[in-house]
Amino acid sequence: MHRALQLAQASADAGEVPVGAVIVRDGVEIAAAANAMRAAKDPTAHAEMEAIRQAARVLGNERLDGCDLWVTLEPCPMCAGAISHARIARVYYAAPDPKGGGVDHGPRVFAHPTCHHRPEVYSGLGESPASAMLKTFFADRREKFARLARGNA
Amino acid sequence: MHRALQLAQASADAGEVPVGAVIVRDGVEIAAAANAMRAAKDPTAHAEMEAIRQAARVLGNERLDGCDLWVTLEPCPMCAGAISHARIARVYYAAPDPKGGGVDHGPRVFAHPTCHHRPEVYSGLGESPASAMLKTFFADRREKFARLARGNA
Repeated sequence: MHRALQLAQASADAGEVPVGAVIVRDGVEIAAAANAMRAAKDPTAHAEMEAIRQAARVLGNERLDGCDLWVTLEPCPMCAGAISHARIARVYYAAPDPKGGGVDHGPRVFAHPTCHHRPEVYSGLGESPASAMLKTFFADRREKFARLARGNA
Repeated sequence: MHRALQLAQASADAGEVPVGAVIVRDGVEIAAAANAMRAAKDPTAHAEMEAIRQAARVLGNERLDGCDLWVTLEPCPMCAGAISHARIARVYYAAPDPKGGGVDHGPRVFAHPTCHHRPEVYSGLGESPASAMLKTFFADRREKFARLARGNA
């Protein structure tokens, strides 16, 4: 999770919502990515999606059997769907996301009988630094917008 | 929808689950894709995802405001999540997917208060040919597997 947190910090530094993800197989990191929605101008470029696509390229297989995903924020419904399609074995997420999460909040993608593959899910490890990073990022952004609004007034 | 059905047929011919998707803005097609999960060895390469990523590249923007998505099968939870992130205005899907859909079945991604953007959803146009194509594809695949199993017996 330490590595995922480093990636999240890198995405914050680049002006993205700070989320990082790492995929590990047999104890070896095979993919790592930071959220890049804005830089890539791609609405699907969440950290988890980028890491999953990278890992599939590395393994030459669209199924990531036996792989673990470590991510700093609870996956959204899109990422939860991709995790299921990719057959990821275990998901470890740091901070819960009551406003946008799709695993333990909102649509709870893995909880439905139509979900074809359910990973094991563990949460909380690294929650404090992951949450602090997100709070700082959104507070800075609000302050920046407020400053811009004052400048335009 | 005719164009999306042509793309679905192309994906069937390539051995993929037959799904096609087209994105239209102001009456002009800006992106079109067929399901390519197996060919691309990418668990995220559903037709809708590929079309959304293409359209974002074309517009140079991760938000596809005012765009319509035409797709031959009800989007899964992953694709529904991406549709929401991309701010697509209207979704037209042909065949319902009670086993894997995420719009009107299973997690019903757009139905939760935490869903930040809900497109208008219309369904049924082109349902017969889209369903027929899927049925033929899966029947052929079952027959092929049965033949292989007999050959190996």
